[in-house]
Amino acid sequence: MQKKLGNKKFVSEDVEIFKVGKTKIIVKIDTFVEGTDMPSKMKISDAVRKSIVACVSDFAAKGVRPQYGIISLNLPKTISRSKINEISNGFNHASKEFKFKILGGDTNEGKEMVFTVSLFGTTDNIVKRRGAKIGDIIFATGPFGYTASGLEILLRKKKGKKTFVKKAISSVFRPNPRLDFGVSNKKYFTSTMDSSDGLSTTLNEMASQSNCKFIINNVPDRYEILEFAKSNKIEPNKLVFHGGEEYEFVFTASKKYKAIIEKNATSLKTPIIEIGYVTKGKGVFVQKGGKFSSLKDFGWHHFRK
Amino acid sequence: MQKKLGNKKFVSEDVEIFKVGKTKIIVKIDTFVEGTDMPSKMKISDAVRKSIVACVSDFAAKGVRPQYGIISLNLPKTISRSKINEISNGFNHASKEFKFKILGGDTNEGKEMVFTVSLFGTTDNIVKRRGAKIGDIIFATGPFGYTASGLEILLRKKKGKKTFVKKAISSVFRPNPRLDFGVSNKKYFTSTMDSSDGLSTTLNEMASQSNCKFIINNVPDRYEILEFAKSNKIEPNKLVFHGGEEYEFVFTASKKYKAIIEKNATSLKTPIIEIGYVTKGKGVFVQKGGKFSSLKDFGWHHFRK
Repeated sequence: MQKKLGNKKFVSEDVEIFKVGKTKIIVKIDTFVEGTDMPSKMKISDAVRKSIVACVSDFAAKGVRPQYGIISLNLPKTISRSKINEISNGFNHASKEFKFKILGGDTNEGKEMVFTVSLFGTTDNIVKRRGAKIGDIIFATGPFGYTASGLEILLRKKKGKKTFVKKAISSVFRPNPRLDFGVSNKKYFTSTMDSSDGLSTTLNEMASQSNCKFIINNVPDRYEILEFAKSNKIEPNKLVFHGGEEYEFVFTASKKYKAIIEKNATSLKTPIIEIGYVTKGKGVFVQKGGKFSSLKDFGWHHFRK
Repeated sequence: MQKKLGNKKFVSEDVEIFKVGKTKIIVKIDTFVEGTDMPSKMKISDAVRKSIVACVSDFAAKGVRPQYGIISLNLPKTISRSKINEISNGFNHASKEFKFKILGGDTNEGKEMVFTVSLFGTTDNIVKRRGAKIGDIIFATGPFGYTASGLEILLRKKKGKKTFVKKAISSVFRPNPRLDFGVSNKKYFTSTMDSSDGLSTTLNEMASQSNCKFIINNVPDRYEILEFAKSNKIEPNKLVFHGGEEYEFVFTASKKYKAIIEKNATSLKTPIIEIGYVTKGKGVFVQKGGKFSSLKDFGWHHFRK
């Protein structure tokens, strides 16, 4: 779909770019749909915030700070005044949290709530999805699997330990994009991609665009995720690699910047994890002991042809 | 709603603006919702085109050419491949018709089709809604009332003469924004506004922002519209002033440019109509013989507070 809407030589990126003089204008549009993206227990203010986070996360991955935003809302005819206020306040709070200015927008009537957010920023250069070099190390900005677990709990009534359930649900309702870390460290990155379509999709896309092989030798899971998977008879890879909606990002960098990147991450409290390395070849493989298993792209694709 | 999403000193405009160096980036977002904006007989390709026209029309009013666009689609899970192709081809055709480049976008699942279009252009200056001067003449880029009549025919099964019905329906399905005229004549305009929220809304907003009184002494109706109104027992003012969805615009200009503007309009085949003049005072009045009746704003407001 996206390919047909774009240009002939279309290389998929996290954000769209156009130039004004020497300045690159970075643009991203993202839509949050009530019936699709909003579990029944989610607060409207968190839904509004998440519609912003989805866009901010792409800017974070590219190391660009969003400066302006425009918003289009669809609201059902019967929506209450108090819900409209909650939406309006939600956008004001989110624009303060992520330090951009809402320029305006429009409201429309629709069958369900739809929040479409478009953010803008400027930069001299962005880090692309292609660009990973042989010998680079691969990082993810956080552990994976909490969001998919949270969705299993919210949508399929799966059970887990109280503290885990809280953490998993919070990762669905109030995800935290890594904007400050992305902006201040992009100079060290050779390639990056927002991982909200699923970690397996992200890794495969980056490896493919970079024309390299990605080896994952440290899966960014956590003991409590494996435990939740086991007790609910879910394949743990499904939660960690194929869930999506984690507003983290994956990046590659030369080994020589490992120490400085890790130091910066600590000072910004961004829990980065070294998950593997880039080598010659193609595809993505998970290394466990001496065995390599191919990791296919099973992430989240809307109507992709 | 929009006021609360915007800034403290919010003056409503057709487009949003931010600056990069000395260049103004013009941005507009507009959403077309299947259940709200798409009469059952409308072709998908025309719906797609109209979602673009709604944005282009605001650019036309401000005299700026859109150069880039991004698109967000909500599509129902069950949509057919052939409809997806029609949507995709529709966007490609519309981007060619209005000469801008689609940078990308995203697709989402939703209960109904929703097309959200955001267009971008650059300019050194735009014509504002405020700016009309006492003594200026007021123009509209086309006759009004066809679209409202078309909607009466499509949605409320009203009847009319065959040629009129065709013209009225065509104005709903394939509206023509006045982009070339707006871009090439903006240097003569003192104020402009897209009229798609209804002519009464447009005139009241321009008069109020410009701190002047607008006198309408030549209502931009047509004999066939009055005839349709009469035979269907509809108040003609409702069709002409309060309908909306006409992707025309209203502009004011000094008398000294009347001749050159009319000459340019003829050469671009844009049917401009001189509808009145700007004077001291406030409000909008329709002058008929020696009588002045106040024209209130009864146009189309979505959830405006």
